[in-house]
Amino acid sequence: MTFVDLGFARVDTDRRNRRGFPEVIFCAGKLPAQVLEISRALLKEDGVVLGTRATAEQFEALSAEFPDARFHSAARCITVIRQPLPAMPGSIAVVCAGTSDLPVAEEAAVTLETFGCTVDRITDVGVAGIHRLLAVRDRLEASNAVIVAAGMEGALPSAVAGLISKPVIAVPTSVGYGASFGGIAALLGMLNSCGSGVTVVNIDNGFGAGYAAANISRLLSLKDAQ
Amino acid sequence: MTFVDLGFARVDTDRRNRRGFPEVIFCAGKLPAQVLEISRALLKEDGVVLGTRATAEQFEALSAEFPDARFHSAARCITVIRQPLPAMPGSIAVVCAGTSDLPVAEEAAVTLETFGCTVDRITDVGVAGIHRLLAVRDRLEASNAVIVAAGMEGALPSAVAGLISKPVIAVPTSVGYGASFGGIAALLGMLNSCGSGVTVVNIDNGFGAGYAAANISRLLSLKDAQ
Amino acid sequence: MTFVDLGFARVDTDRRNRRGFPEVIFCAGKLPAQVLEISRALLKEDGVVLGTRATAEQFEALSAEFPDARFHSAARCITVIRQPLPAMPGSIAVVCAGTSDLPVAEEAAVTLETFGCTVDRITDVGVAGIHRLLAVRDRLEASNAVIVAAGMEGALPSAVAGLISKPVIAVPTSVGYGASFGGIAALLGMLNSCGSGVTVVNIDNGFGAGYAAANISRLLSLKDAQ
Amino acid sequence: MTFVDLGFARVDTDRRNRRGFPEVIFCAGKLPAQVLEISRALLKEDGVVLGTRATAEQFEALSAEFPDARFHSAARCITVIRQPLPAMPGSIAVVCAGTSDLPVAEEAAVTLETFGCTVDRITDVGVAGIHRLLAVRDRLEASNAVIVAAGMEGALPSAVAGLISKPVIAVPTSVGYGASFGGIAALLGMLNSCGSGVTVVNIDNGFGAGYAAANISRLLSLKDAQ
Amino acid sequence: MTFVDLGFARVDTDRRNRRGFPEVIFCAGKLPAQVLEISRALLKEDGVVLGTRATAEQFEALSAEFPDARFHSAARCITVIRQPLPAMPGSIAVVCAGTSDLPVAEEAAVTLETFGCTVDRITDVGVAGIHRLLAVRDRLEASNAVIVAAGMEGALPSAVAGLISKPVIAVPTSVGYGASFGGIAALLGMLNSCGSGVTVVNIDNGFGAGYAAANISRLLSLKDAQ
Amino acid sequence: MTFVDLGFARVDTDRRNRRGFPEVIFCAGKLPAQVLEISRALLKEDGVVLGTRATAEQFEALSAEFPDARFHSAARCITVIRQPLPAMPGSIAVVCAGTSDLPVAEEAAVTLETFGCTVDRITDVGVAGIHRLLAVRDRLEASNAVIVAAGMEGALPSAVAGLISKPVIAVPTSVGYGASFGGIAALLGMLNSCGSGVTVVNIDNGFGAGYAAANISRLLSLKDAQ
Amino acid sequence: MTFVDLGFARVDTDRRNRRGFPEVIFCAGKLPAQVLEISRALLKEDGVVLGTRATAEQFEALSAEFPDARFHSAARCITVIRQPLPAMPGSIAVVCAGTSDLPVAEEAAVTLETFGCTVDRITDVGVAGIHRLLAVRDRLEASNAVIVAAGMEGALPSAVAGLISKPVIAVPTSVGYGASFGGIAALLGMLNSCGSGVTVVNIDNGFGAGYAAANISRLLSLKDAQ
Amino acid sequence: MTFVDLGFARVDTDRRNRRGFPEVIFCAGKLPAQVLEISRALLKEDGVVLGTRATAEQFEALSAEFPDARFHSAARCITVIRQPLPAMPGSIAVVCAGTSDLPVAEEAAVTLETFGCTVDRITDVGVAGIHRLLAVRDRLEASNAVIVAAGMEGALPSAVAGLISKPVIAVPTSVGYGASFGGIAALLGMLNSCGSGVTVVNIDNGFGAGYAAANISRLLSLKDAQ
Repeated sequence: MTFVDLGFARVDTDRRNRRGFPEVIFCAGKLPAQVLEISRALLKEDGVVLGTRATAEQFEALSAEFPDARFHSAARCITVIRQPLPAMPGSIAVVCAGTSDLPVAEEAAVTLETFGCTVDRITDVGVAGIHRLLAVRDRLEASNAVIVAAGMEGALPSAVAGLISKPVIAVPTSVGYGASFGGIAALLGMLNSCGSGVTVVNIDNGFGAGYAAANISRLLSLKDAQ
Repeated sequence: MTFVDLGFARVDTDRRNRRGFPEVIFCAGKLPAQVLEISRALLKEDGVVLGTRATAEQFEALSAEFPDARFHSAARCITVIRQPLPAMPGSIAVVCAGTSDLPVAEEAAVTLETFGCTVDRITDVGVAGIHRLLAVRDRLEASNAVIVAAGMEGALPSAVAGLISKPVIAVPTSVGYGASFGGIAALLGMLNSCGSGVTVVNIDNGFGAGYAAANISRLLSLKDAQ
Repeated sequence: MTFVDLGFARVDTDRRNRRGFPEVIFCAGKLPAQVLEISRALLKEDGVVLGTRATAEQFEALSAEFPDARFHSAARCITVIRQPLPAMPGSIAVVCAGTSDLPVAEEAAVTLETFGCTVDRITDVGVAGIHRLLAVRDRLEASNAVIVAAGMEGALPSAVAGLISKPVIAVPTSVGYGASFGGIAALLGMLNSCGSGVTVVNIDNGFGAGYAAANISRLLSLKDAQ
Repeated sequence: MTFVDLGFARVDTDRRNRRGFPEVIFCAGKLPAQVLEISRALLKEDGVVLGTRATAEQFEALSAEFPDARFHSAARCITVIRQPLPAMPGSIAVVCAGTSDLPVAEEAAVTLETFGCTVDRITDVGVAGIHRLLAVRDRLEASNAVIVAAGMEGALPSAVAGLISKPVIAVPTSVGYGASFGGIAALLGMLNSCGSGVTVVNIDNGFGAGYAAANISRLLSLKDAQ
Repeated sequence: MTFVDLGFARVDTDRRNRRGFPEVIFCAGKLPAQVLEISRALLKEDGVVLGTRATAEQFEALSAEFPDARFHSAARCITVIRQPLPAMPGSIAVVCAGTSDLPVAEEAAVTLETFGCTVDRITDVGVAGIHRLLAVRDRLEASNAVIVAAGMEGALPSAVAGLISKPVIAVPTSVGYGASFGGIAALLGMLNSCGSGVTVVNIDNGFGAGYAAANISRLLSLKDAQ
Repeated sequence: MTFVDLGFARVDTDRRNRRGFPEVIFCAGKLPAQVLEISRALLKEDGVVLGTRATAEQFEALSAEFPDARFHSAARCITVIRQPLPAMPGSIAVVCAGTSDLPVAEEAAVTLETFGCTVDRITDVGVAGIHRLLAVRDRLEASNAVIVAAGMEGALPSAVAGLISKPVIAVPTSVGYGASFGGIAALLGMLNSCGSGVTVVNIDNGFGAGYAAANISRLLSLKDAQ
Repeated sequence: MTFVDLGFARVDTDRRNRRGFPEVIFCAGKLPAQVLEISRALLKEDGVVLGTRATAEQFEALSAEFPDARFHSAARCITVIRQPLPAMPGSIAVVCAGTSDLPVAEEAAVTLETFGCTVDRITDVGVAGIHRLLAVRDRLEASNAVIVAAGMEGALPSAVAGLISKPVIAVPTSVGYGASFGGIAALLGMLNSCGSGVTVVNIDNGFGAGYAAANISRLLSLKDAQ
Repeated sequence: MTFVDLGFARVDTDRRNRRGFPEVIFCAGKLPAQVLEISRALLKEDGVVLGTRATAEQFEALSAEFPDARFHSAARCITVIRQPLPAMPGSIAVVCAGTSDLPVAEEAAVTLETFGCTVDRITDVGVAGIHRLLAVRDRLEASNAVIVAAGMEGALPSAVAGLISKPVIAVPTSVGYGASFGGIAALLGMLNSCGSGVTVVNIDNGFGAGYAAANISRLLSLKDAQ
């Protein structure tokens, strides 16, 4: 069977086969019991549960049944790791412009670690003090890819991309006020980046950025495996 | 009299008295004959004409009567200078991110020069190659104020402001495509700049940026005059 | 060292050297302990702390350690002043259109006073009763620069700019309802001002307006210092 | 019959009976032959044709058959007046902020004159030089109602409303550039006017403003007729 | 004196002289003590207080000092009437499309009644059942002017305007969901009304509609007074 | 009589005669007593009450008087069925992309069942695992029409329409975050569907989709009745 | 084979089998030679070509090879009918609010006729003169479904839906100016229609509306065929 | 030297060293002579010129001096290849939803080929006929990464991502009309993709997508080189 029909959800147990990584639970708007039931199906099939946008209440429902469940509060993620995914070669840098962007950066980092990647976290290197960024240039260049989370005007991905030769994945955050419009200013800034080759994910979508970066590291794994 | 009623326009001949600089003609949408008639009134009163968003046709109408009229084609400006405004102390840096932002930067520069300022033009120092900007840092710091014109994501004013102690006036330009939305991305980027104290004018409004910078230099003139 | 790495933040201790004013803490979204730790680093280096968008809870954390900390509740700002910045010559007028714009105007005023400026506060002179504005024209003209905070249609900066010869910095506020769209109407009004040379900061960004005005007064200080 | 079915249009010959004024032809997008055929029906029934947003080509089609047709080129209107509508008491002031707003103001004026109103035209009294507006205050107050056409930030209706006791109808124009967004800035400014009781019509809709003002004068006519 | 400076506000005591109606207090965002202090000044000068967007808490502050203060809860208005404004001839119809539009319609009605107008309230005549509207056509035509409050698609003003010869003032309400965008759909619908001469006020601005309609009735009063 | 005037509402008792289905109560923003009073009028005339966007409090008011009232909590609907509407031939498929879209899908389903339709519910068949959709293709084709509720990018209706020959009615939901803008992304996706003939209703408007589908089934009933 | 690969296009020759109607060519942006080549494939497989958004140049390329090709200029459509689709029972009403909406209505009508439907065209029945709509109520009710094309405020579908019991498909048109925003005002009006069950297609998408209506008539054909 | 100052431009001759690929000329808005002068500097330093958004006129200026210059008209690109970049291992699939998306897809393909990548072009596999996409699944999975260009609702990247395990880079195109808003609908669809890990570039930015994909292949080259 390629999916499990729970009535309220069809769990895609073929996902890992097709896509390389197992299905991940988007917990927002789901009842704790629903998250639990989907987790059971995924643990049985894949041995790994990653739930994003999770609440403490959902975590309690899981940890009652799975004592090894872990709540990553800054990232708002739940993980239950029974059969760890294989470790990937190299590392992914997760950079953020300011302290307020940390939750989004952490969602990316937890996703990466769940998927077998090593993460290099770099915080508060916004362009208002460009010397802070120049000081970490070598760490950025040493990574397989760089995830850059930034709110307000979202200028950091352009500056990062201008300095290094590795793929840059930009995550606009909803940090800011007034004409930042909940992340739209940062999103537009990143889409219009003068730094060639920057790609962008949805506002606050740390998971998506982590997934895309893991996908890139996975290519190198496949290369190793040849 | 504080204004001259031409029927289709009321020329504000009191403007220089109240505001420090004479009235400037926004030529867009005006007939050549209208631009000419307003110019006559301004020359008579103030001895200086500056027309922005001017066309070659409007210039021809003026130069037929005022042979000393000058057309600044890159800036789309007309000037007729009979009684030059007094020279201001110091200089204003006019910076642009890319070659395509030059018309907006030139409108600022012509405004500044008409108003008695010295201009230091710096071109193509966008953040995709930040070393080009670092190379001109001292010229920027040596100015009274810095005007920064940029399109696309509009990140340059943040980077400039982070490096120097002088007022930074940002001008978003309509350069870009797709989600730049005719300058909105750059405008939002500048309004949300993490570079403290950056102020912003309308999209493509080189004149406004030049006026604001001249206003700042004028304060220093007044100081000298005390 | 040009910055202090606290893990969750890199405090830019070189800021005052480069930019003329020390780093300011944007408190929104930071834990009280984080605000405290950054404050320690700034006090040690600069002797001055200014925190904007601060909460009472953050203030309590600071005042427990720094009894001379002060909470400016209308402005939502915290200050700890151990080594006051040098006093600037002249004054800055901070004008607001209506009573509801006061919090934004106060954020500008506290920023200015922390940076060494004298402030002239003028309240409730909106264009619905233009005689109230005409009555204060001389106070406006006597300032180095004028900050104008207004919500709704944001027409006041145009009217102010039309009357005086000093730089005008406009701050749109989120005051209004319906099609004011949280300050967008005022922002657009100010960006399209027919009052030449008006510059604009982000919606509700009293801090940015204050910073920009202080930057202008600082030019006059530098002139004095020559 | 309450309407005439021309196949491509149903001419509302009952309009004057229900609404006080006959149907007006919105010419944009109609073939000259269509405008002509509708005009025939209206002339037969009402003796008056007013076509707005008309082209020279449409006018030629009409004037070939109706030699007394008149083209108001500034207003882009066609009129054929066989049975003039009765003259209304008093006058309507039609004010515009700048020379570029004249076409919209003229559309309002031609509508008013076709409907029997006397028009007092006042041009170029924008808020950048408020003394020009104060100079005409008595003419504004002497009118039944005031139509104010303005582009850019659209601040003039607020200033006018603050000075007088008569109804103010605001018409945003598409004059401006950049963040004026084809009249949106002016429209939002007028909708959020701090001048109590200002009402607004669509961008560039001089006809609608003229109609609304004529409707007000018509109330006074009805009063006279009692 | 033409205004009273309370520090936090400048009460425009010249308003009634210039504009025909006294200043009205926009209570949103004001402290109860501020509303009270402004009310004292207005009562002393004009004998009439109208506060819109008022809270129960603000009302309590007023009623403690002015026992004759009245709270119109549906309209969210406070009134204190010591010297009633003179009664106006005729009536104003206040129409709403659905039950949910009532608060906005009531704000218009209370404004009208405070200003001396007679109000004819007509509820729930939306276009989904057009026969309900046709049934009240004569009441609409019998008014001096008609205020139409509607949310969702805002089609009612077009339908009303098509039936009668009196001025129609449209008030979009924020009633609706999804793509109604808090009243934007209704606002755009009304601005683009095919019903000639419809004028529009801000979303949920019942006060503005009431003021504009009262202004029209006041013209008839002036006519009577001649 | 074609309507019942309750003062705060005019119940359209002619609705079923004109439109085929009785009036439905949009409960949002109505007092429980108002919902009750309208329900009485509808039960008397039509024998069927359907209230959408209902609260538990409104339901309690109804069930006190009508013990057979039923609350569909997932759909946020109240029904009181005294005279069931006649059963329609065939069925309507109600499909949703993810578990979070269920409330909107249920509102459609309850509307359909109240109007006499049979519903085939299909959940969680989003395009991220297209095999889940292909597995239900025959059930979709066997329906009279298919309602598809989806949030995020709203791609499911295009995929469904590409597979079958029956009418597809798309309902964007507000499920998503960041640049989903409360359903706008899904709405635009559906309006631009490359699946020919897809029609769209408002964001979260399960009722509207259900009504439209019931209208289609009703045509088949009328055919049967011939 | 289920598709034909032409290199620049994959013609979906399985479309009629899956969806009931053959593939239709969206001609915008295609070279005449491309339209011709796709037409050959479709004629061979299906015997029917419908091209929408076609130019005269594309038509010439087709008519050179297929002399029986027909250009519907008002609708901007090309048809080549070798094997007519079977006639459907009943008719579809295609209604438009004004003369300027005719091209969109005609695109719907040509689509319907190509697909075997009978069309009842009704023009210029906008709500500004509601009696014109009431006069055709019986023709509307007699149809299987009604397509309503309207620009400006897009109020007509609500009024139509309120009068009849048949499905209503609304097509916003880009007719209008100013705040109609190229059809957005009409689109939002239709999405928020108070007329229950109205469904909407993209701006100016007459083809989509025609397809959806034909899909409904096809259900009745299938019923007949049982 | 790390850049060459041409006055109107500062050519970043250090780009290849920092970023892996040489600077690319964005030709839009540049004079042919400017494109030529920049090309000379790049050829001298890097031996490779890629100009995007180029015109025939710009190409003529180049080919006069560089006879081996090549114009890729579908992609609107110019190339001059003197020292080819090293070939990368594997291939990149460039997929487009419809024929009209080809220019954007070609810009990506030319960028990739200039940078040393092998391209697998796949055209017209939109979701309206999903069997066309399923037929090429193995070619997609065999690539290093997949670029997907789509307009209208932009659903194709979600469907592609759901089928394979390789990185997917989505390019929204401005193909569509009405509520596609020049590519915004597709952009939002892609940002909200339910296909985990999809990253997005600006509307019509084929170059950016090609650059990002080449960056990924380059990682594999570096791996090989170890």
